[in-house]
Amino acid sequence: MLPIIDMIGERGLLMSEKILLAHGSGGLLTRKLIEEIILQAFANSVLNKLTDAAAVSLPPGKVAVTTDSFVITPPIFPGGNIGELAIYGTVNDLAMVGARPVYLTSGLILEEGLEINLFKEIIESMAIAAKIAGVEIITGDTKVVEKGKGDQIFINTTGVGIIPEGRELSASKIQIGDKVILSGTMGDHGIAILACRKGLSLKTDVRSDSTPLHRLVEVMLEVEPQIRVMRDPTRGGVGTVLNELAEEAGVEIKIEVEQVPLLAQVQGMCDLLGLDPFYIANEGKLVAIVPKESADKITIAMSKLPEGKDAAIIGEIVARSIYPQVYVETEIKTTRILEMPMGNQLPRIC
Amino acid sequence: MLPIIDMIGERGLLMSEKILLAHGSGGLLTRKLIEEIILQAFANSVLNKLTDAAAVSLPPGKVAVTTDSFVITPPIFPGGNIGELAIYGTVNDLAMVGARPVYLTSGLILEEGLEINLFKEIIESMAIAAKIAGVEIITGDTKVVEKGKGDQIFINTTGVGIIPEGRELSASKIQIGDKVILSGTMGDHGIAILACRKGLSLKTDVRSDSTPLHRLVEVMLEVEPQIRVMRDPTRGGVGTVLNELAEEAGVEIKIEVEQVPLLAQVQGMCDLLGLDPFYIANEGKLVAIVPKESADKITIAMSKLPEGKDAAIIGEIVARSIYPQVYVETEIKTTRILEMPMGNQLPRIC
Repeated sequence: MLPIIDMIGERGLLMSEKILLAHGSGGLLTRKLIEEIILQAFANSVLNKLTDAAAVSLPPGKVAVTTDSFVITPPIFPGGNIGELAIYGTVNDLAMVGARPVYLTSGLILEEGLEINLFKEIIESMAIAAKIAGVEIITGDTKVVEKGKGDQIFINTTGVGIIPEGRELSASKIQIGDKVILSGTMGDHGIAILACRKGLSLKTDVRSDSTPLHRLVEVMLEVEPQIRVMRDPTRGGVGTVLNELAEEAGVEIKIEVEQVPLLAQVQGMCDLLGLDPFYIANEGKLVAIVPKESADKITIAMSKLPEGKDAAIIGEIVARSIYPQVYVETEIKTTRILEMPMGNQLPRIC
Repeated sequence: MLPIIDMIGERGLLMSEKILLAHGSGGLLTRKLIEEIILQAFANSVLNKLTDAAAVSLPPGKVAVTTDSFVITPPIFPGGNIGELAIYGTVNDLAMVGARPVYLTSGLILEEGLEINLFKEIIESMAIAAKIAGVEIITGDTKVVEKGKGDQIFINTTGVGIIPEGRELSASKIQIGDKVILSGTMGDHGIAILACRKGLSLKTDVRSDSTPLHRLVEVMLEVEPQIRVMRDPTRGGVGTVLNELAEEAGVEIKIEVEQVPLLAQVQGMCDLLGLDPFYIANEGKLVAIVPKESADKITIAMSKLPEGKDAAIIGEIVARSIYPQVYVETEIKTTRILEMPMGNQLPRIC
């Protein structure tokens, strides 16, 4: 046995202020960490059993499954933290295929030396975010790696949702004339992270837009069940998502730049740093391709919810093409091609 | 944009020999990595769609969900590697609740600088292991962190399985007189990892026992549907699992040490290093508590499969108790208490 008590000192098991390697070993310290912090926050009848796998019943319908690992730095940022982001990011991936989120899993990789208080704050945020999104965290896993072999905390969340009968969203349904809707301002999350990174002394009020989108999706699909496809423009931003959709559907997409919701501060920061807001990440926005005739109705319905209040029609599908592309048109009709980026302007933003 | 081309050099996108930060950015390099390595290995009709969430149909029955993050070091070890381990570990967690594994997710966190060849080897092992276990990897996520902020590769696998009608395994079903079965030799995985760790020059032939157990579980439940409970003794080993079961059921468990399958080399290494094999991890073994009258029949059936060939009855439930405990008895009737360990003897063994 390791001399664990020596490692913890005289203050006892639970008074340790930092995560120890032994917290990830599967022994008594792992159990204490799980029972006194994680279960305390996530408690529900399934998780409380602490079995190797959770056994649950699912409502009828197709099952949607998604997984996402979050490695964002710093873990606490203006407008959110990695815990909340992990819940909403996974809820949103389910919502994008028309699924109603039901269950989430939590896989934690902690770096030795992580402050227990910071860990608690993140876990409590996950619990609150799960309540807000109406999902239960039904199973989890916690590992600890040596100092210098991780970066404070990485979180994997896997989500399970149900796609109601008859719903099928797919880029293959895109038609010429369809409209492109963006649910709100572009690039807020990426700029908020960029501005708060250590070493950058840029001042800005921009906060992450991290928020769950499943409620907005339900409203949109109630107004128009024939919405073609939805994507949340996270890593790679709106520009990347539009390029993916153009390629999958084999079409040209025209975006009218004046219609694109964009905070003046985000535009300002992008100008200052030589970045293109079309490639900056969001964590609470969606791009939808919708039938022309219902685009206005959908946008109005979206704008009644806080998470859709700035929703706008930003462009349209102009042609089928064997050279799929996205281009941006200005008011005076100059155009530029919005290309698929090679890498990203900013690493580890989610 | 980052000067990606400069980072890659003249050999082009795919000829890069190491993982770059840009491989995790969500842009073109991420897509190349996914399409040319991950999809190449995992290809199936659901995953190939590359949607935000996979949409699947599930057979009837209760749904089992489990998640596990793998941080083992080194990533390649005698008898397996982190990729194979991630598949089998998650398959086994499903099997332990009586579920038939159906779908898996793959969440990868790569460290900048990881050799592409090593990455490929691991991904290909995951694909082969999934085929062997009869599961499909239906959705995934890949992130890259800066050099020094991770440790080559961490893998989260989340599993979805189906528990057939009428099956319910639970420690609460444990009865006095029930027998304890161990499916094979104890501690192989932990000793194999320990022996190959950098800096240790111990020579041993012990290989990890990493293997899927769902087939063995099905055979056991066919012989005796009333098996009480099963656990795979991974982190913390057989000693930890027995303590958990004793506590959950409120019982005393007696183990006859001469009956416990143990390789002479594992015993030897433990003696040399002052370790107790009861707390050393396995990755292809299970502990089952079974009705007394069918214990022999179950063990014989198990021994016909390679993964159960050394199965043995190692002890029994001797009493109910408000002080649950596990004790080990030798042939000459001396006893010692097998306590719940505080931490583990060896970090990062899975």
